[in-house]
Amino acid sequence: MNFPAHATSPDAARTLADPDTPFAVVDVHRVRRNIERLSTRADRLGVDLRPHVKTAKSLDVAALLHPGAPCPVTVSTLAEAEAFADGGYTDITYAVGIDPHKLPRVLALLRRGVTLRTLLDSAEQAEFVAEASRRAGLSVPAQIEIDCDGHRGGLRPDAPELVEAGRILHAANCLDGVLTHAGESYFAYTAEDLRLAAKNERDTAVAAADRLREAGLPVTTVSVGSTPTAHAAEDLTGVTELRAGNYVFFDLVMAGIGVCRIEDLALSVVVTVIGHRPEYGWIVTDGGWMAMSRDRGTSVQAQDQGYGLVTDLHGNPIPELVMTAASQEHGTLATRDGARLPDLPIGTRLRILPNHACATAAQHHGYHVVDSTRTTNTAPGIQDFWRRVTGW
Amino acid sequence: MNFPAHATSPDAARTLADPDTPFAVVDVHRVRRNIERLSTRADRLGVDLRPHVKTAKSLDVAALLHPGAPCPVTVSTLAEAEAFADGGYTDITYAVGIDPHKLPRVLALLRRGVTLRTLLDSAEQAEFVAEASRRAGLSVPAQIEIDCDGHRGGLRPDAPELVEAGRILHAANCLDGVLTHAGESYFAYTAEDLRLAAKNERDTAVAAADRLREAGLPVTTVSVGSTPTAHAAEDLTGVTELRAGNYVFFDLVMAGIGVCRIEDLALSVVVTVIGHRPEYGWIVTDGGWMAMSRDRGTSVQAQDQGYGLVTDLHGNPIPELVMTAASQEHGTLATRDGARLPDLPIGTRLRILPNHACATAAQHHGYHVVDSTRTTNTAPGIQDFWRRVTGW
Repeated sequence: MNFPAHATSPDAARTLADPDTPFAVVDVHRVRRNIERLSTRADRLGVDLRPHVKTAKSLDVAALLHPGAPCPVTVSTLAEAEAFADGGYTDITYAVGIDPHKLPRVLALLRRGVTLRTLLDSAEQAEFVAEASRRAGLSVPAQIEIDCDGHRGGLRPDAPELVEAGRILHAANCLDGVLTHAGESYFAYTAEDLRLAAKNERDTAVAAADRLREAGLPVTTVSVGSTPTAHAAEDLTGVTELRAGNYVFFDLVMAGIGVCRIEDLALSVVVTVIGHRPEYGWIVTDGGWMAMSRDRGTSVQAQDQGYGLVTDLHGNPIPELVMTAASQEHGTLATRDGARLPDLPIGTRLRILPNHACATAAQHHGYHVVDSTRTTNTAPGIQDFWRRVTGW
Repeated sequence: MNFPAHATSPDAARTLADPDTPFAVVDVHRVRRNIERLSTRADRLGVDLRPHVKTAKSLDVAALLHPGAPCPVTVSTLAEAEAFADGGYTDITYAVGIDPHKLPRVLALLRRGVTLRTLLDSAEQAEFVAEASRRAGLSVPAQIEIDCDGHRGGLRPDAPELVEAGRILHAANCLDGVLTHAGESYFAYTAEDLRLAAKNERDTAVAAADRLREAGLPVTTVSVGSTPTAHAAEDLTGVTELRAGNYVFFDLVMAGIGVCRIEDLALSVVVTVIGHRPEYGWIVTDGGWMAMSRDRGTSVQAQDQGYGLVTDLHGNPIPELVMTAASQEHGTLATRDGARLPDLPIGTRLRILPNHACATAAQHHGYHVVDSTRTTNTAPGIQDFWRRVTGW
């Protein structure tokens, strides 16, 4: 167990009633169940899983992803890559288009024996990677980002630059494959939309790989994934690996598009009631956007969940109670549809389920860990404290 | 100088071209100018200034607030209170309604000789504070929060509970005064609205103080403030101190309501161009919401500034270029009104001016410091690195 600085003795019996609020909590039972679910799917689809660790950014959460030796992972920053390399992970994809200025840190990881795979979507970047490889006398593995749905970066499979970038990389022995991310699947509304997004993601990646192969270029990795499409894909023929990150925790956005149930949400924030405004129908807490983030992902969904849904300290939802507003260190709770405000005296602790786990987790140094299968009459016991990797 | 872990030797000449992006930058010249402006106003209005350190959360920024001995400050967390106490600050107002669970940390600060003033808005909390004071054999100074505009917490000046809470506090020698915050002034649209918000904030605080005094209760502190009202107030008769926090940095929300100019914004985030999508009119950078926060405060203003305005590395605005979308580690830039996309090759560094300085600053461990009065042909030199206080 490693408790944060403010903690009292690790030997003291500690529960969710103990640390000062607000703080982030992870239910390890739900994390295990979420991991098992996608792992089973990937096995059935016949692809390797390369979890994205950008959501939890925690070596402790990552340890639940694999029984023994570290698995392949995806990262969103070089700080994550370095921390996971320190933790024994040797197969890491850095899934953000490479900034040439960061190549020295990439090379340092390669020299440590870590297969650090980079991403790019232009001939210009391919030249930087090829040149850095030649100068260093080693090959920086690079994947070409493919745009499957106009989400942000990537080349379309029919872009002339795809083959051009592939040739530049191959000449320096850097070409590893292609990677795509169906980011627009976060805005899917039906199971059919999700299924189609997954099919499109797979088809686009495979088309790009085929195009490179037709040009005589070797493609080893064909990587696809997002939490929604990973749970909706039915056929991943031609794909070598599946990526997903959010699924370890899930959140209200994922529940809103039907990828998980509310009872699968593994991350929450414990807050305390610090005031009442009966004239407005508000309960005021000490958990504002600093604890929850400013993410309002569900605002574009059929059911807007405000800044989050409210549960009691055991994780049981309090019907109709929603966090409706946030300032830096204040949260406002109110009921939907004029439902009666529950009686929650000053000092009552509650848990808030977030819109977007990646954003909420980022507001905290780490997670107090509980296990919802260990039921108690008193507040849930804290099993551990898991630190997050921060910065870039 | 104290440079972060990733930094190369502090002796090496370092500029904004050096650290890996994204990272936060503060222009110390603008900070000084912003501080001087409000300081002059407070002097003219005849009130003490008690700056809120929740925006910068930095002892280095706070040091610019006062020439010699530490000044009175306002904090939003006990972590800030403790860090500022460690830094020699002895007069601190913790301006979030007190959670009784946190009173042991408040008492510990009082025992260190720090005048830690608490805030509350109910008789229930007053009882907790009075009881904790009696048990500890010392008085926890407490202010009663007054609601001047329905923003979140506080009692109306005519609420019966105001005098009740005052009596409970006074009986334990805890009553320090009243405090209000015109939080709704962030949504003001004209200079006249701001002036009225400032007048209302002052009038409400003074009315509450008068009501307590009429009930025979001593009121020492009458505290008002927010960055918009602090810059609009014309008469603060009866007020003893003025609070404001955001003004040290300012941001696009403040510029949008006319409290500052774009050229007063002291905080920005340096990002790097990592891709181009000419078919969509996008430039892709490595600065997403992890670096900028999810705050979209200008979305409700006359001019929506997306996730931020773009400048070159020297801080010169690039006309019509706006950060229009953000994912975790990707930012999308586009031009307004179909303006021509500037030619910004892969690797170009830019600075993004944020919607909300408090939220953007919170995404970073600290600030690289530049001084815009030291002009250079190359990238601006980094003078120092200032760490932030984090957590609760």
